[in-house]
Amino acid sequence: MIIVMKAGAAKKERDEVLKRIKELGYKPHVIHGTTRDVIGAIGDERGKLVLQSIESMHGVESVLPILQPYKLASKEIKKNPSIIHVTDTVAIGGKEIIVMAGPCSVESEQQIIESAIAVKQAGAQMLRGGAFKPRTSPYSFQGMEVEGLKLLCKAREMTGLPFVTEVVNPETVDLVADYADILQIGARNAQNFALLKKVGQLKKPVLLKRGMSMSIQEFLMSAEYIMSEGNQAVILCERGIRTFETATRNTLDLSAIPVLREKTHLPVIADPSHGTGNHHYVAAMSFAAVAAGADGLMIEVHPDPEHATSDGPQSLKPAKFLQLMEKLKIFAEAAGRTV
Amino acid sequence: MIIVMKAGAAKKERDEVLKRIKELGYKPHVIHGTTRDVIGAIGDERGKLVLQSIESMHGVESVLPILQPYKLASKEIKKNPSIIHVTDTVAIGGKEIIVMAGPCSVESEQQIIESAIAVKQAGAQMLRGGAFKPRTSPYSFQGMEVEGLKLLCKAREMTGLPFVTEVVNPETVDLVADYADILQIGARNAQNFALLKKVGQLKKPVLLKRGMSMSIQEFLMSAEYIMSEGNQAVILCERGIRTFETATRNTLDLSAIPVLREKTHLPVIADPSHGTGNHHYVAAMSFAAVAAGADGLMIEVHPDPEHATSDGPQSLKPAKFLQLMEKLKIFAEAAGRTV
Amino acid sequence: MIIVMKAGAAKKERDEVLKRIKELGYKPHVIHGTTRDVIGAIGDERGKLVLQSIESMHGVESVLPILQPYKLASKEIKKNPSIIHVTDTVAIGGKEIIVMAGPCSVESEQQIIESAIAVKQAGAQMLRGGAFKPRTSPYSFQGMEVEGLKLLCKAREMTGLPFVTEVVNPETVDLVADYADILQIGARNAQNFALLKKVGQLKKPVLLKRGMSMSIQEFLMSAEYIMSEGNQAVILCERGIRTFETATRNTLDLSAIPVLREKTHLPVIADPSHGTGNHHYVAAMSFAAVAAGADGLMIEVHPDPEHATSDGPQSLKPAKFLQLMEKLKIFAEAAGRTV
Amino acid sequence: MIIVMKAGAAKKERDEVLKRIKELGYKPHVIHGTTRDVIGAIGDERGKLVLQSIESMHGVESVLPILQPYKLASKEIKKNPSIIHVTDTVAIGGKEIIVMAGPCSVESEQQIIESAIAVKQAGAQMLRGGAFKPRTSPYSFQGMEVEGLKLLCKAREMTGLPFVTEVVNPETVDLVADYADILQIGARNAQNFALLKKVGQLKKPVLLKRGMSMSIQEFLMSAEYIMSEGNQAVILCERGIRTFETATRNTLDLSAIPVLREKTHLPVIADPSHGTGNHHYVAAMSFAAVAAGADGLMIEVHPDPEHATSDGPQSLKPAKFLQLMEKLKIFAEAAGRTV
Repeated sequence: MIIVMKAGAAKKERDEVLKRIKELGYKPHVIHGTTRDVIGAIGDERGKLVLQSIESMHGVESVLPILQPYKLASKEIKKNPSIIHVTDTVAIGGKEIIVMAGPCSVESEQQIIESAIAVKQAGAQMLRGGAFKPRTSPYSFQGMEVEGLKLLCKAREMTGLPFVTEVVNPETVDLVADYADILQIGARNAQNFALLKKVGQLKKPVLLKRGMSMSIQEFLMSAEYIMSEGNQAVILCERGIRTFETATRNTLDLSAIPVLREKTHLPVIADPSHGTGNHHYVAAMSFAAVAAGADGLMIEVHPDPEHATSDGPQSLKPAKFLQLMEKLKIFAEAAGRTV
Repeated sequence: MIIVMKAGAAKKERDEVLKRIKELGYKPHVIHGTTRDVIGAIGDERGKLVLQSIESMHGVESVLPILQPYKLASKEIKKNPSIIHVTDTVAIGGKEIIVMAGPCSVESEQQIIESAIAVKQAGAQMLRGGAFKPRTSPYSFQGMEVEGLKLLCKAREMTGLPFVTEVVNPETVDLVADYADILQIGARNAQNFALLKKVGQLKKPVLLKRGMSMSIQEFLMSAEYIMSEGNQAVILCERGIRTFETATRNTLDLSAIPVLREKTHLPVIADPSHGTGNHHYVAAMSFAAVAAGADGLMIEVHPDPEHATSDGPQSLKPAKFLQLMEKLKIFAEAAGRTV
Repeated sequence: MIIVMKAGAAKKERDEVLKRIKELGYKPHVIHGTTRDVIGAIGDERGKLVLQSIESMHGVESVLPILQPYKLASKEIKKNPSIIHVTDTVAIGGKEIIVMAGPCSVESEQQIIESAIAVKQAGAQMLRGGAFKPRTSPYSFQGMEVEGLKLLCKAREMTGLPFVTEVVNPETVDLVADYADILQIGARNAQNFALLKKVGQLKKPVLLKRGMSMSIQEFLMSAEYIMSEGNQAVILCERGIRTFETATRNTLDLSAIPVLREKTHLPVIADPSHGTGNHHYVAAMSFAAVAAGADGLMIEVHPDPEHATSDGPQSLKPAKFLQLMEKLKIFAEAAGRTV
Repeated sequence: MIIVMKAGAAKKERDEVLKRIKELGYKPHVIHGTTRDVIGAIGDERGKLVLQSIESMHGVESVLPILQPYKLASKEIKKNPSIIHVTDTVAIGGKEIIVMAGPCSVESEQQIIESAIAVKQAGAQMLRGGAFKPRTSPYSFQGMEVEGLKLLCKAREMTGLPFVTEVVNPETVDLVADYADILQIGARNAQNFALLKKVGQLKKPVLLKRGMSMSIQEFLMSAEYIMSEGNQAVILCERGIRTFETATRNTLDLSAIPVLREKTHLPVIADPSHGTGNHHYVAAMSFAAVAAGADGLMIEVHPDPEHATSDGPQSLKPAKFLQLMEKLKIFAEAAGRTV
């Protein structure tokens, strides 16, 4: 960590800072500048964020961290990309781009079975569908809960597609884990640390969505929460951040893909349905995500979006999804991947 | 709700929309414009967000909601400001501005007792202190948990100050409620709906912090979650939103105070410590919050910020807090309030 | 436009609104709702933004515009994509993806000639280079000005590449137009209306960059400024918006490409160099932009980035650019385009 | 400046960096850390932003600036607050809070005279009014131009109030300076460097509004542009930044006031009318701005907001403005100021 002293800070103030740095277990190193001193504090900064408190001391202008605060998620620990095995045939992070498709919410047996068949026929390797729904309004449909999980299992049996579904409460993590192939942590729970710790104790893969106003560093810190509990099978999902722009529901930050590729060994997928909030833009952003290096996609498909209980405007009809998948193959090939 | 048809939409498309509006229980009303039709859908929009799905239909350009989606939190239900009674002597939302002060985290008996005595002497009416801490890093201090709650009780006994403390997990809500006078929902959990529902079942006041990228409407929807479970004692807390500006930790959105005053009967307080992240700016923003109409303030005070385990840079020393409180009285009086 | 009355607004208030709507030349149409009235104002809203002032009237809750405020830039005026002809062989908006590459600033004859040769060899169809530089600091290099324009012409002569260069002041528009093939309006001047009007009077193509915090609608309004003065040859350029994320210099909003494709006939290109601010991410975002449907790319290439006077960190070396162009051809083909 | 090397960077890479630092006129100083080296580059960073280009070198992870990049605007140059004298009786930055009030645009002789008389009676010390208007739409009213300036002069003659008015084009700076007492640079032109340089050559005060997505550091850099040309009479104006929140037109960042107070000697005022975009919130935010330490306020007042050609929804009627001014006196007194 680098401590920048104020121009004209007293020697006594500097000495107090040096003393405090040593107390915290670091080795200080002073650089005398033309107008001010700068102090390097040598040692592993992680786990000692308390160093930031030096900013309160007299004569200190600012404290600049140097190291990234995550370890297990970083490439310093593991250079090669991680491949997360979901089933014998589905793995995320390898050459094959994995598409998880299906409705926002499970609404009925017919709806989820129909969806599963359609997305399988189009080439998706996984089914998605919400049974526990985190809705902005308490008056909105909150999901079919256990009943929904059972219907997802039925769809899995019929099609062979493993499924991902969201978990919203530490109390129901074990329940959901009994059914699902991947547990999803949604954007609104991306810093729900109690939930992160709980899924960190599972042996099942976790799909972690980026929070709406989460920096990439914080995103990796949330992955680190899961990993530090023992579960290394974390899949990161960019799903759009909140900005001033209102033409799209969120702003899908595709540059997060190459940035994450540089900083972490974990696989990264994109969700263009939530990222744009508009089914007209989903295909273009799916292709772009793959071109940017995504390991997978999460896409909302609904047999009857006009009657969907949630997120109708961003859901594709099966016929449109089929077209998307056809073109996606071409872009995957351009990227040196398969789908 | 208003449905705007595309210019040149076919009559058949419009008829489909009219049919769907009726199916959903609304009465449609068509306005024939010069280049397009606009359809008003009459009826209470709340609880029927499914209407948004009409946006997926052919010929539809956009769907504009008219009503605010919250009820219990709105002024349409209750015109007069709500006053939340915490103890016999402390009430939030009345003439008296309530100041809740203390350290970010409870660290030791000495620290919390010293803090409580100091803030009481300066004139604060409540103590704050975290026992369960939601930290960005899994390697940071996570709080003293139950031990911390017991120390807060000890500080309450010694000073008579009721206290507010955060709850982070539905599983520990009942535990925390056994000790605390007000339960706080932190910014990162502001859309943790499982947690909101759980505190909604309590008979204790809840202090709900605004999420980092939460619109004012979503903030009120989270309050509505708590209220719809039966607990009407909700205190809203503006604590800064995330913007591009990095000179402050967050951007304290004081305009949220008059906006909320217009839209809800619930009391509103401000947290200038988290809002700015820098103890130099806390006094100015405290005065500004009171001038903008805040019903209270939440301020971090620590006897020894340089050694704090969390949020040292934004904590005031007791002497500075005393000065702040002296000036605050003058601004409170200017606002027609007491402190 | 839709005027939403407050619940319980008086009949007199509604009548005043109706009267005012008629005064402004619209035909009002009242929908009586269950709790409030909603008034449709029929007529072309554009050029009459004064209607928004109705929001000041008693009893009015909000005023919702329906039409997009731009005309010439919209697809309602012109359904087919516009193709902007720069020279006999270079056209933007057709099947061929146009790559404009070169240094941020013209620094010397050797540097710009070397750059031009390198980007041509790699397959770029246009040269970019700044002669007038809008720099955040008055102490930074401000560009070689006319001397820089002359060097760009020399590079054009040697390589045959037409060039795009920025104009920052209405007073020098005619001067720059004497030299350049395309005039660029930078992000910081995207709402410099005096400058927009001036380039609107030219017969040369204008490349308009999106402002850092400009909504897509405002972006199209700035294009409309140029077009309403007579110049229809406008190329839109997405170059990243400002968000809370600091891992990239800006957040390249690639979803703007499909959104603009839907709303306007003007061609759209992307600038991944400014969009990310880091040469490591430029290739991935170039491919993604093409997959999302971009008509072209603007990429910074510098023979010696470590010694660049501006934007070194985001500039590619010629060898890296050559690699990028090789792969870009594959993605262009996947998109049904050439490069 | 601090250069952080990558973990495992080669000695040769480090040596190249050291060589480059010396070439640029700095003295390098290496700190050998446990996993990586950190290099301090000692010397005045300002005017040498080229140092950032080191980020392109092999083995470099990041480059962290230490010094603020502005000089003339900084407190290092001038510790005491600057007082800007507008006329013999009006000065900004002293004990007296200066209120500049009037319509968004000059619309007619009657309108501006009526406004001037009203705001003077209420206690404002200056008149505001736009003659050259930067409007988002080319079809909106663009201002009365010179005619408007003449009407402002007439209003000044009648009331004795000096006036501030916007300038939007370097070509008309001298013209506007012939009439106005203070020249305003609007938010959209806050990085129009040609315009900033031009007003920097005047001997008249300049009111510089913060750009919509401008960091506080960039805001001070724009002030530095004006000051570096010779004009030290710069007044900073916080007018709201662009965020995700749509309940207000912008988010008035009042914390910018104490931050600027710490970093610069220049006076700071606030514009709650543009900051909120809604006349209901103007009074609360005016009081808050004064409590936060503002040296003045800019407030829109219109005798007939329902018929205003621009910004009607955010304009106060004279009677409301009078009430605001009465209460403002009380808050000014609380802040140890007068109005």
